[in-house]
Amino acid sequence: MTIAASASISADDATRSRRGRPGYERRQVLAVAVDLFNEKGYDATSVADLAAGLGLTKSALYHHFPSKDHVLEQALDVALTALEDVLDDPAAEADSAAAQLSHVIRGAVVVLVEKLPYVTLLLRVRGNSEVETRALERRRVFDQRVTAVVDRAQTEGLLRPDIDPAVATRLVFGMVNSLTEWYRPGGPLDADEIAATVLATALDGLQVTRSAS
Amino acid sequence: MTIAASASISADDATRSRRGRPGYERRQVLAVAVDLFNEKGYDATSVADLAAGLGLTKSALYHHFPSKDHVLEQALDVALTALEDVLDDPAAEADSAAAQLSHVIRGAVVVLVEKLPYVTLLLRVRGNSEVETRALERRRVFDQRVTAVVDRAQTEGLLRPDIDPAVATRLVFGMVNSLTEWYRPGGPLDADEIAATVLATALDGLQVTRSAS
Repeated sequence: MTIAASASISADDATRSRRGRPGYERRQVLAVAVDLFNEKGYDATSVADLAAGLGLTKSALYHHFPSKDHVLEQALDVALTALEDVLDDPAAEADSAAAQLSHVIRGAVVVLVEKLPYVTLLLRVRGNSEVETRALERRRVFDQRVTAVVDRAQTEGLLRPDIDPAVATRLVFGMVNSLTEWYRPGGPLDADEIAATVLATALDGLQVTRSAS
Repeated sequence: MTIAASASISADDATRSRRGRPGYERRQVLAVAVDLFNEKGYDATSVADLAAGLGLTKSALYHHFPSKDHVLEQALDVALTALEDVLDDPAAEADSAAAQLSHVIRGAVVVLVEKLPYVTLLLRVRGNSEVETRALERRRVFDQRVTAVVDRAQTEGLLRPDIDPAVATRLVFGMVNSLTEWYRPGGPLDADEIAATVLATALDGLQVTRSAS
């Protein structure tokens, strides 16, 4: 990360306050921290690791975030808020449940692509602290809201009724979340193309229905 | 784990050789170790943790496995061999590519259900050691072989040709692998029912094609 390269600070600076230094935006600190958490694992990353990775003193880091837990909380909030925004989009609410589901799947893929490291971190959370438990609870509520959309789309007769809505939701998000395993920025497919592929697979399936091509 | 409860051994026993003690089968040691790795994380689990979790002395544990890395290697081999066996099944080889793909998806779901902790461990491997790198390489070869099946099914005209075979494979395995996140043994669906659901979603999609129900 260029932040570390451009502003490495020796341990001797540890006691000097760096409050207000304009280059260190909270968002940049967050981005570097999330990369470190994903690389080393959250538990294995110390505040000293974070400070070193950022080229900051510990005290400068504490200026932005009072603890490592706060960094995690903010990072998870970035992913969760982006996903929740997809469901809260008034454009989605107005449509039929089937259209709403398409909007949610498409929107979730775009969030995965645009906030990949944040969602990667979110998906690794196992509930080891209060911050993680709260994040898992927000994921659960999100899943329940998507399940309700699938349920309505089944009632509207637009989705096959023989698959449990909760299982369908989990399978669709299995596809969406797999992006954290294989999607790399700058690859051949952009967010819209991946979203279209996930949507086509989830709704129409991979099989040619009528005749051989 | 009952192994720990039924045979806890004090630290005083550390020097006494326990070779040949019949109750401690390698497979049982492996099962308990995999649960610990999944719970605490592999890196965070020490040989002392393993021994304590098993109610074994370190020396008794070393009788079964010369190092923690060997335990990981054996555990990952359980998952990888089970998955590879699905592809190597001669019954699958003989059929059309589309039938073969159905066989692979079904078989992979059954492996996930039957070897859930082993596959969970496999999916968390990030390549932090030679053992992990080799496991990732075997996963890559497995993915490539499945991709080749998808590719042939497209050529046969049985799968839609507009989705890249590698992306299709990743999405299907996104669904299959999501079982490690939500499937719990003893739930309402058995392996065959989950396999049927994944297959229906992957091949036919969730959408009702013709008319509302």
